[in-house]
Amino acid sequence: MPEFFNVLPPDEARALLFDYLTSQLPAESIPTVEALGRITAVSPRAPHPLPNFRRSTMDGYAVKASDTFGASDTLPAFLQVVGEVPMGAAAEVELQTGQAAIVHTGGMIPDTADAVVQIEHTQTIGEYGAEYAASSEPFEIEVLRPVAVGQNVLQPGEDVAEGAEILPAGHRLRPQDIGGLLALGLTEISVTRQPRVAILATGDEVIEPTAMPGPGQIRDINSYTVSGQVIEAGGIPIRYGIIPDDIEAMRQAARRALAECDMLVMSAGSSVSVRDVTVDVLNELGQPGVLLHGVATRPGKPTIVGVVEGKPLLGLPGNPVSAMIQFDMFGTPAIYHLQGLQRPPRRGLVWATLTQNIASESGREDYVPARLSDGPKGLQATPVFGKSNLIYTLVNADGLLKVPLNKGGLLAGEMVEVKLF
Amino acid sequence: MPEFFNVLPPDEARALLFDYLTSQLPAESIPTVEALGRITAVSPRAPHPLPNFRRSTMDGYAVKASDTFGASDTLPAFLQVVGEVPMGAAAEVELQTGQAAIVHTGGMIPDTADAVVQIEHTQTIGEYGAEYAASSEPFEIEVLRPVAVGQNVLQPGEDVAEGAEILPAGHRLRPQDIGGLLALGLTEISVTRQPRVAILATGDEVIEPTAMPGPGQIRDINSYTVSGQVIEAGGIPIRYGIIPDDIEAMRQAARRALAECDMLVMSAGSSVSVRDVTVDVLNELGQPGVLLHGVATRPGKPTIVGVVEGKPLLGLPGNPVSAMIQFDMFGTPAIYHLQGLQRPPRRGLVWATLTQNIASESGREDYVPARLSDGPKGLQATPVFGKSNLIYTLVNADGLLKVPLNKGGLLAGEMVEVKLF
Repeated sequence: MPEFFNVLPPDEARALLFDYLTSQLPAESIPTVEALGRITAVSPRAPHPLPNFRRSTMDGYAVKASDTFGASDTLPAFLQVVGEVPMGAAAEVELQTGQAAIVHTGGMIPDTADAVVQIEHTQTIGEYGAEYAASSEPFEIEVLRPVAVGQNVLQPGEDVAEGAEILPAGHRLRPQDIGGLLALGLTEISVTRQPRVAILATGDEVIEPTAMPGPGQIRDINSYTVSGQVIEAGGIPIRYGIIPDDIEAMRQAARRALAECDMLVMSAGSSVSVRDVTVDVLNELGQPGVLLHGVATRPGKPTIVGVVEGKPLLGLPGNPVSAMIQFDMFGTPAIYHLQGLQRPPRRGLVWATLTQNIASESGREDYVPARLSDGPKGLQATPVFGKSNLIYTLVNADGLLKVPLNKGGLLAGEMVEVKLF
Repeated sequence: MPEFFNVLPPDEARALLFDYLTSQLPAESIPTVEALGRITAVSPRAPHPLPNFRRSTMDGYAVKASDTFGASDTLPAFLQVVGEVPMGAAAEVELQTGQAAIVHTGGMIPDTADAVVQIEHTQTIGEYGAEYAASSEPFEIEVLRPVAVGQNVLQPGEDVAEGAEILPAGHRLRPQDIGGLLALGLTEISVTRQPRVAILATGDEVIEPTAMPGPGQIRDINSYTVSGQVIEAGGIPIRYGIIPDDIEAMRQAARRALAECDMLVMSAGSSVSVRDVTVDVLNELGQPGVLLHGVATRPGKPTIVGVVEGKPLLGLPGNPVSAMIQFDMFGTPAIYHLQGLQRPPRRGLVWATLTQNIASESGREDYVPARLSDGPKGLQATPVFGKSNLIYTLVNADGLLKVPLNKGGLLAGEMVEVKLF
């Protein structure tokens, strides 16, 4: 039987892949409201300060701060209220010493004011009682606390200064980023194009999910699990269906898929001979071709990783558990890389107490599906043991537990890191 | 000024909301391949065992295990290879005692075999040398290790037994769940309808993001941040635009939105008087109406929570930071609830070392935006301080840090939980 060559630890294997993945996909300009989850291709700057006028952060009165110095419950400052700043309009009222203007939260501060007294620190005098309402007649208030210059006032540019870089390039857009862009009127944004990921299934035993399996046949799983993973990573899955175990059919399908897409994933047949054919097919696609054939992990050792003209190639083991784990290890980072994502999402890691011993071999990174539950001392992780042919070991798990490369297993009671699905 | 009534801690406020949210949305049947992220409305069962035939987990030879008992390197068992099981076809070869058949990983095991010897534990004899190929002529192998009955064989139903519940109802479908359903030929799945969430912005100062703000005007942020949060929670945002601060206009818009959608979110103006109008408008929509007006958190205290005819109502503060945090606290769980989701996603929580002291008031849950970085002792969290009017405090943060209800602050060096965006 053939030797596996280049069996590398996962980190080295990924580094090798990235050495050959030099460029990211081109940018496209799209409406900001549709850009959730997309990756910025440029680093947008603020076209004007935000806010672009002085705003009140309280309901109350715009004042000259010096008029309130020393004010207290027993010795309030008396001010004459001479107008109101309407919401959404310029603050046209002019204040003289000893005067104030009604202002609402978010409203503009008159040029002649420099602070806001919140309404809870004032009392109105005379017929207005506790009524808080606009009036065309001036009325008087008692101010019970002093305010400093600038107090309860948002300064222009306090949220963002004009010209400031508001987001880095290579940033995944979240709801607040969309809001921040639109607050500045940036209704279009330049983002990296989403990678189109070609997915080919191979295997004479594999049939479409709509078909009824005869003896020896199984339905295609990997095309669909990988499609879901592509979507979750920000790519667009393009399924090319099931290719027969015939080198010429595989060649043609792989060439067409690679020409039409930005990345190629073949879910190889499970047997050694079929895997070798996959290596040959991927190698013939161009330069540099297959970079390594074998990763020091379990499950998923016979994974094929390559690059052709800047497009990642991935040959996944046929077993559905191996295929998902290996796609997570190489496919998802490759999709991030093609989009220029600078900081992969941190989400998806939890620490939990292991409930059972797990055996492992040193020199290999093991991934064991695990189910999480709430235990007496917090989260606990129970391994879901099962052969890597069994998709339901993943269905019944909440995440993957990693046994590090040079650790000969894990003991019950240890704290372990679980990567959530 | 009006009193806030019913200021509840967030957990009690949420419990009150859920008391009135009794039913979930109706189910709909959709293609399984399009069901990623949707919530199961039923608990599907396996229509047949998976696999539905005995499969080999190795490349090697199907044998009668008893023929290999006692086999070793020095005393191998000799077997005659009389055929090959082709991939994707019935295993028609019949084995007599002392006979074996070539079988590939995933291939069917002949009825007359009960185990598989992996190829690495065999040697071929004679002209075939190390060649591993099908042959029409019988040839002999030496078996160097014994196998037990059932070894390297996947039994029918070992992945899932016929009739087994394969997923619970109320489960969010992940890539492996889609694969697991399709493996069983379940190409349609009954899922809960996605909630349509109406989003109304109010405020005379608020203008569309496409417009250029005049003095005192700001662009709408909340309609878009909340839209993103709705999408991330699995709902469909429907924006009704900006409604003037006029009770009749708000009434009409709210009634229409509630009739057309499953949930109503109003981003209220920031001033107290406008908030009071929002309470009145929401209360007039039906029974039970507004449940509480005020949550013991900062930011976001003046949040309005209500229910009308099983549809959640949410009045968010106008400040963008408060609005996002409060939507996360009530809106996201409400969307999960309407879809019948049983286990909200665990993802999105990390522990980190706090880099600075944070002051807080007892009796209030504080949420402070925080930026994560890698420190000498692992992940560290640095608070991003800023007024809740400043959307860029959230843009510049990786998550929210919670100061618990009855803790008067947090100290630098403490381990804190950060909820990731």
